[in-house]
Amino acid sequence: MIEGKHIIGFEQIAKGESCFYAVDPVTGNKLDHRFYNVTTDEINYAISKAVSAFVLYRKKSGVEKAAFLECIADEIIALGDELINCCNAETALPKARLEGERTRTINQAKLFAALLKEGSWVDARIDTALPHRQPIARPDIRYMQIALGPVTVFGASNFPLAFSVAGGDTIAALAAGCPVICKAHPAHPATAELVAKAIQAAAIKTNMPDGVFSLLFAEGISAGLQLVQHPGVKAVAFTGSFKGGKALFDAAAAREEPIPVYAEMGSINPVFVLPEALEKYGEKIATGFSNSVTLGVGQFCTNPGMLVYKNAGKQNNFDDQLKNAFQNTTGGVMLTQNMYDNYNAGVANRLTNKDVVLLVKSGTDAGGNTANPVLLKTNFIGLKNDLCLNEELFGPASLVVEAISKNEMMAIAENLSGHLTATIHGTENDLIGYKDLLDILEQKVGRIVINGFPTGVEVCTAMVHGGPYPATTDARSTSVGTAAINRFTRPVCYQDMFQHLLPEELKNENKLNIWRQINGVQTQSDVEM
Amino acid sequence: MIEGKHIIGFEQIAKGESCFYAVDPVTGNKLDHRFYNVTTDEINYAISKAVSAFVLYRKKSGVEKAAFLECIADEIIALGDELINCCNAETALPKARLEGERTRTINQAKLFAALLKEGSWVDARIDTALPHRQPIARPDIRYMQIALGPVTVFGASNFPLAFSVAGGDTIAALAAGCPVICKAHPAHPATAELVAKAIQAAAIKTNMPDGVFSLLFAEGISAGLQLVQHPGVKAVAFTGSFKGGKALFDAAAAREEPIPVYAEMGSINPVFVLPEALEKYGEKIATGFSNSVTLGVGQFCTNPGMLVYKNAGKQNNFDDQLKNAFQNTTGGVMLTQNMYDNYNAGVANRLTNKDVVLLVKSGTDAGGNTANPVLLKTNFIGLKNDLCLNEELFGPASLVVEAISKNEMMAIAENLSGHLTATIHGTENDLIGYKDLLDILEQKVGRIVINGFPTGVEVCTAMVHGGPYPATTDARSTSVGTAAINRFTRPVCYQDMFQHLLPEELKNENKLNIWRQINGVQTQSDVEM
Repeated sequence: MIEGKHIIGFEQIAKGESCFYAVDPVTGNKLDHRFYNVTTDEINYAISKAVSAFVLYRKKSGVEKAAFLECIADEIIALGDELINCCNAETALPKARLEGERTRTINQAKLFAALLKEGSWVDARIDTALPHRQPIARPDIRYMQIALGPVTVFGASNFPLAFSVAGGDTIAALAAGCPVICKAHPAHPATAELVAKAIQAAAIKTNMPDGVFSLLFAEGISAGLQLVQHPGVKAVAFTGSFKGGKALFDAAAAREEPIPVYAEMGSINPVFVLPEALEKYGEKIATGFSNSVTLGVGQFCTNPGMLVYKNAGKQNNFDDQLKNAFQNTTGGVMLTQNMYDNYNAGVANRLTNKDVVLLVKSGTDAGGNTANPVLLKTNFIGLKNDLCLNEELFGPASLVVEAISKNEMMAIAENLSGHLTATIHGTENDLIGYKDLLDILEQKVGRIVINGFPTGVEVCTAMVHGGPYPATTDARSTSVGTAAINRFTRPVCYQDMFQHLLPEELKNENKLNIWRQINGVQTQSDVEM
Repeated sequence: MIEGKHIIGFEQIAKGESCFYAVDPVTGNKLDHRFYNVTTDEINYAISKAVSAFVLYRKKSGVEKAAFLECIADEIIALGDELINCCNAETALPKARLEGERTRTINQAKLFAALLKEGSWVDARIDTALPHRQPIARPDIRYMQIALGPVTVFGASNFPLAFSVAGGDTIAALAAGCPVICKAHPAHPATAELVAKAIQAAAIKTNMPDGVFSLLFAEGISAGLQLVQHPGVKAVAFTGSFKGGKALFDAAAAREEPIPVYAEMGSINPVFVLPEALEKYGEKIATGFSNSVTLGVGQFCTNPGMLVYKNAGKQNNFDDQLKNAFQNTTGGVMLTQNMYDNYNAGVANRLTNKDVVLLVKSGTDAGGNTANPVLLKTNFIGLKNDLCLNEELFGPASLVVEAISKNEMMAIAENLSGHLTATIHGTENDLIGYKDLLDILEQKVGRIVINGFPTGVEVCTAMVHGGPYPATTDARSTSVGTAAINRFTRPVCYQDMFQHLLPEELKNENKLNIWRQINGVQTQSDVEM
């Protein structure tokens, strides 16, 4: 049963008076359940619980935290069809997609559980004492990563499961040993409540402290800012718009104690198509690109918002190949009325530019916030003269840029700001001739995709879902994959600590069998004294 | 020969008109050489050279960068006595101390060279393709750390070699693959010039690109702010005052593209003495503490500015032990007139507090900016009522706080802000009874020292020289030890990249023999396809 109350540790509370409703994205009508807007007292209560929980939670072993994460996965599975139906009603995302996203969410929790059980992620380093070293003895120094403190997580609208309440940020923070205060995205509050209750149940079952997780509901930005400004919060994770992420970054930097903000914001994920690939595989590329642009109604962070190709000189069929492929795509209902309106306004705005033409439009003008996929086209000059064309247009649209030379293509790459991904379609020959393009793109993004498409972000050890500003506010980390755990940690070292008071990871005897650097050498051995 | 000109890549330039002189810390007289204040054009020129150099330098192999760092060490050694004499004249630091610091500086460069030659620091991660996975194939994803871009380094005054021009920040940034633009500390400009020329010579000898390193001279804060605000700069490292570090942090956060700032600022490095240790080892602790407080005229970042002990209940001899030990310490000339004035003003100001008494003073009132070591004393109430007592007093002074209960000691620990270090003197028994103190301190600092003193920061694999704000602006890193390299890197991943276009670290064949995570497993093996 959806109650619309805040999940604050092991309690459900709602003492405020103002409420909001989720909205059916298709009809714009209110859905059944009402949700209370969180009060300042409730925010403070959730954070004070998180601060208290941190003292206990940060000392939990990897095995204990892993059991918690695995139990979260089990509890989410146990929600069954209710979760999928509820989420479908709130987001209009197809059930098959949501089932896939649920699998991803669960696998993500399990992947972090495995990381914790293996244990080497703490980056243990041990430099043993050299008591007889001249001119001064070297002490015994032992280093590892520890948890930062309570983390505020802002759920994303576009992945209501995998990037939301039990999404990558929450799971990475919990894995690191940090309690999480999550602000539910108001576009899918009932989904958020169901998942939060699953986390709450898992916390109780696995004996985690009250306050290790809370979920708060609020419309508007005030509650979110309070959650960032509170001195008890030590880091912030956010996925959403540039405006929202930057506001949180600025608020965090202006605190008496500044804290890290991991905001994943806009990205156009440019795709470059090189000459030989264009000639040999134009049709296949056109099809893959069209599918990638329109996947999930274009509501992916990694949606390719720009394709740059070089006119092959001979007869250029690529525009026709793109048109043919794109005509077969379908539109869909966008997540919110607001996104739909912004999408249409963005397309219309771009078409007021005399250098931009409509290459192809698909979809059926079906109404009910159903976006029609659109491919626009411009050239080097058009792109250069209108900075707005370099900005993300959230939805199933992309901009095709025809370059007339390698130089133009290189200049387009050089002028890119930071993005999550860049993609190159090229044969081995192409890439040898465009090594310098690769070198430029490496400096612009977190992930380089060769002969594929950026949508579909693998949750694995080697993933980087991040990139230079303005794609994110902190290029030094990833929001997907196991490396995300280090967003929420900092190193500490112990000098000449008594053995039995050291964390298990740093004792002489390596009971956990983790990889450690002992005097600079990677090993699973015990420390020999 | 000292020229007083900026070292901009492989050139020496000075087109400005205003100049400044280094000052003899003892007499306050100007020293021989004049130094030009950098102009805006020169700042822009140095950064544009660094941006160009970055394109080449970031692609240098570990072996090539290691040769550069080793050559820097050789060139610094080759400066011989000139460096020590010059530095002594500018800082009044004893020659023996400076020789030790030079050794440390050289060993630091060599340690990073060894790190580069070993090569595993890039944290290579390879997840191989699973083309037959259902429902979708997994691509091949390969991850490693790459260089961030040009870095601005602000040299510290208190370690004119080890934390200055060729100090930890410069060496870590160069090791990461980032060009460095260093702003010389105006208290030791001739020393800075000598070292910069050594780096310049090493860059030329080892075939590094013009612009990989520059040194700029300037009094005042304007040039420093320009160096932080320039869009070509991608990270900042600073060691100095809270005011200076915070100003740089704020300027960097306010940029159109915010960048990381690693500012190491103030720290009082509290020392806690537990009951049994007090009783058994009081005299030894008093001696060690007195030496640590007055080492280098108290001008260490890790100088212990506070000692908290619990009254043993019986006759309390510890104050007398402290007095006896401290009386044997000597003062010395401080690095600058300004520091000397601030030190005296700080001591005088603290003594206006009615709850603060002068426990003991040593030294000879020798004049010539020679600071006299001072121990002040207060109690729990005094400390609680005067927040200023929690602030760093730079120089050979410390505050002794007598707690009358474990609760008071715990409350003092709880109220601490972030510091670089915390020290506990305790027997094994003591520490069992004060495990909760250890747990609190772990959340407050980067390094916990047991039965030692915080001065003396080992340059090694496991060191953390950092800590929560306001000790630093980024607790997620260290400024000393090999982990500092990750201040200046970010991860990138390659999806389905052609083998021969991958960085050497990520190819199937592990020619570099580095440790990598292949499908989540740590190994030095090749990737088996």
